Amino acid sequence: MAASSPISNTVYVGPFVHSESLSTLEIQERGAIFVDSDGIIRHVEKDIQEGDLPNLIQQKGDSWTDAKIVEITGTGFFFPGFIDTHVHAPQHPNTGLFGKTTLLDWLQKYTFPMESSFSKLPLAHRVYQNFVSRTLSHGTTTAAYYATIHVPATNALADICLARGQRALVGRVCMNSDLSPEYYRDSSTETSYADSKASIDYIRSIDPKGEIVKPIITPRFAPSCTPDCLNAMGRLAKETDTHVQTHISENKGEIELVKELFPDSKSYADVYDTHGLLTDKTILAHAVHLTPEERKLVLQRKSKISHCPASNTAITSGCAPIRDLLDEGHTIGLGTDVSGGNSPSVLENVRQAIWVSRHLCLQTSKDKAKLSTEEALFLATRGGAAVVGMQDKVGGFEVGMEWDAQMISLGVVGEDGCRDGAFKEGPVDVFGWESWSDLVEKWVYSGDDRNTVAVWVKGRLVHRTGRFSGAERVATP
Amino acid sequence: MAASSPISNTVYVGPFVHSESLSTLEIQERGAIFVDSDGIIRHVEKDIQEGDLPNLIQQKGDSWTDAKIVEITGTGFFFPGFIDTHVHAPQHPNTGLFGKTTLLDWLQKYTFPMESSFSKLPLAHRVYQNFVSRTLSHGTTTAAYYATIHVPATNALADICLARGQRALVGRVCMNSDLSPEYYRDSSTETSYADSKASIDYIRSIDPKGEIVKPIITPRFAPSCTPDCLNAMGRLAKETDTHVQTHISENKGEIELVKELFPDSKSYADVYDTHGLLTDKTILAHAVHLTPEERKLVLQRKSKISHCPASNTAITSGCAPIRDLLDEGHTIGLGTDVSGGNSPSVLENVRQAIWVSRHLCLQTSKDKAKLSTEEALFLATRGGAAVVGMQDKVGGFEVGMEWDAQMISLGVVGEDGCRDGAFKEGPVDVFGWESWSDLVEKWVYSGDDRNTVAVWVKGRLVHRTGRFSGAERVATP
Repeated sequence: MAASSPISNTVYVGPFVHSESLSTLEIQERGAIFVDSDGIIRHVEKDIQEGDLPNLIQQKGDSWTDAKIVEITGTGFFFPGFIDTHVHAPQHPNTGLFGKTTLLDWLQKYTFPMESSFSKLPLAHRVYQNFVSRTLSHGTTTAAYYATIHVPATNALADICLARGQRALVGRVCMNSDLSPEYYRDSSTETSYADSKASIDYIRSIDPKGEIVKPIITPRFAPSCTPDCLNAMGRLAKETDTHVQTHISENKGEIELVKELFPDSKSYADVYDTHGLLTDKTILAHAVHLTPEERKLVLQRKSKISHCPASNTAITSGCAPIRDLLDEGHTIGLGTDVSGGNSPSVLENVRQAIWVSRHLCLQTSKDKAKLSTEEALFLATRGGAAVVGMQDKVGGFEVGMEWDAQMISLGVVGEDGCRDGAFKEGPVDVFGWESWSDLVEKWVYSGDDRNTVAVWVKGRLVHRTGRFSGAERVATP
Repeated sequence: MAASSPISNTVYVGPFVHSESLSTLEIQERGAIFVDSDGIIRHVEKDIQEGDLPNLIQQKGDSWTDAKIVEITGTGFFFPGFIDTHVHAPQHPNTGLFGKTTLLDWLQKYTFPMESSFSKLPLAHRVYQNFVSRTLSHGTTTAAYYATIHVPATNALADICLARGQRALVGRVCMNSDLSPEYYRDSSTETSYADSKASIDYIRSIDPKGEIVKPIITPRFAPSCTPDCLNAMGRLAKETDTHVQTHISENKGEIELVKELFPDSKSYADVYDTHGLLTDKTILAHAVHLTPEERKLVLQRKSKISHCPASNTAITSGCAPIRDLLDEGHTIGLGTDVSGGNSPSVLENVRQAIWVSRHLCLQTSKDKAKLSTEEALFLATRGGAAVVGMQDKVGGFEVGMEWDAQMISLGVVGEDGCRDGAFKEGPVDVFGWESWSDLVEKWVYSGDDRNTVAVWVKGRLVHRTGRFSGAERVATP
């Protein structure tokens, strides 16, 4: 993969699509985005006409005259890279294995045995290399990863993300309570603190400016940690000014358990707050059953929410009330939550977010619960960027932002009904009469990784299929 | 495609998986299925050992000594072809286009304009060729198709299914009421009858024994037809002993409309019953909101139910109570309901059936609402076969049944974490430690058409990807 090759000034030419606001997409049918060798967007030109490009390039000055041109023609478009705000990389081999379990028995039956095996570094390397390839192939340019309790394996995940060029928050999982089996937990609060700190230090040593990989403090969830361990994590977050991620209010059994374990706390959210873990750099996964008071507290603390619709359905957790949370002003992104979720694809979770919102509409008879295509795509890009604190860097195509993008290409049906390459071009069939807005909808509701033919992070090509040559001019069908 | 080449006696060797009952799968790790040149399964051998095959073949007599051998090694398996019990072929170009509409406005906004364009035969050819390729690529060996009101285009769909070797019930859509726009409806009951009869006669002329294609009488749904038109269709069904398909109780607005339009009927189901359309050869799509009395009536009449979970979610119709319907003894299969449903894949609808059942569980707090993987696969194969009246022919691998099957192949992760062919082998990652039951679950929850490398109907190869050579011995990874 080209992740280590030097990059040159590049002009990306063709249609591009990104969120203008929560409810509107900008569909630019013919644009040119000028990206410098640092991966920064320097100019964005819209509505350009056939033959304009040479002039436009010349106007931008000498540094652009030799720029590489990556052009889409036909039915493709550029779209911002997806941001997966909640994903467990070591659970990837368990994807699709959950039977009829719900959270607490699923953890014991599937999750802990798998994660504990990451004490073996070669195994960790194998799974993480595979999984980072997978998520990149789905257009995920940034991921907030949970690793395991093991420092070497966690650091290996950070190494792999850095080498492959995928932006990542990488968290060593902290869990010391006896909810976890003896074979898979931190032996003490001191170990929790020291190991979490060691991983933070390592990740900061390999990417001192945090341009690609950053550490994130990761107490698994309240029941996994003793109160003093939660306090230690809160202290560590403050001392090191680090992001925090954890789970909240995913499942009703879990909420009852938190009440039992923390009888003096006012609520689940209050447990995190009183242990210094509810900060403006905290990502809370799920938030399915938060009370109004908890929602207010999360909002006051400016903590962020990762909505994991596929997982919430697969392990029967519930339907997170995203419309209400949005109306209240929460910052929300999407999480695949592999392997509670059955797919590493954020695009699949865009669909699932829409399905879950329709089920909420059915339950409540409130039509406004329904998320639109535009809203779900916003959550997957700009929403996610805000959740990981990168809203000024990624999630859209504006001057000054960085080029984290995917090239989408759709398959065109021939006059005889046939498709080139026997569907190698993926599951979307374009007949030629569709509007641009139809093409985007078709991609959202039927597309998959085959439609993501190239992926860039900070201007660097980090994934491509055989259909993207990397050549100066790219003609997609 | 090999659909027209002669077929020889063939022994399919390797793991095979099919439903033993509603709740159990038989996973045979090493079997041999002997299929004759008519596509009939003549012998099924189980638990065969390395080196046994030559002896086993010899024991079966001279006609098998020159048989072709199609063998799977590694992580692949044979699985029965899927049966799509409800799908609108002409709506394929609209897949993914529904916005936030529900049934009645969706019909007016998206469906009727698209279907009306099938008066142009070249357009119909283009879409139908494409769609039959698509459904075959997803392993759909039998489909109950709705076409449009146009006789030539409907007949063209039957021609294409026959030529491509896909089993199909093909129905000219009958609709004469003013619910449909003037530009797209039958001009009178006489036209409805004559055109439906013409299409039945044509389809019976091209496949007199109905081995591959059969006609099906298709009154769109009660509100689309005047009472005398429904009567005419009931009469036609009786006169010609033909299957019937229609929609029932999909959406609450639709149910209200039926009450208004048929004030003398006891219920929606009663409308069909009193017009001679509730027979043991009737397929009722959706059945989301049936009353207990209607369910009893459907059961008494031995009519069948097509469950369309993706569609019911996408256009916010509701959650069909499949567990209750199964407990009552209804015959149920799965339908993709393209383009109310967003995917032509029955496998995707296996997942969606499971998701919908989990949402029902969340709403009712009844854990038993949840469908298991095994149950959903049963609906997709044996259940569907019973819905289309072919339970003795297809849906499983027993002696005397016909070879409608798909070869499933899963991708194996290398020791270095890499995958051959950059994920061309599809979305399932196998690490090597999985049980056979895990492999099936991984396929169900993460697989797609890339994992269906070859498809047979009645012994004939009707689809293959580049990964299946058709050679005598096939080594899948």
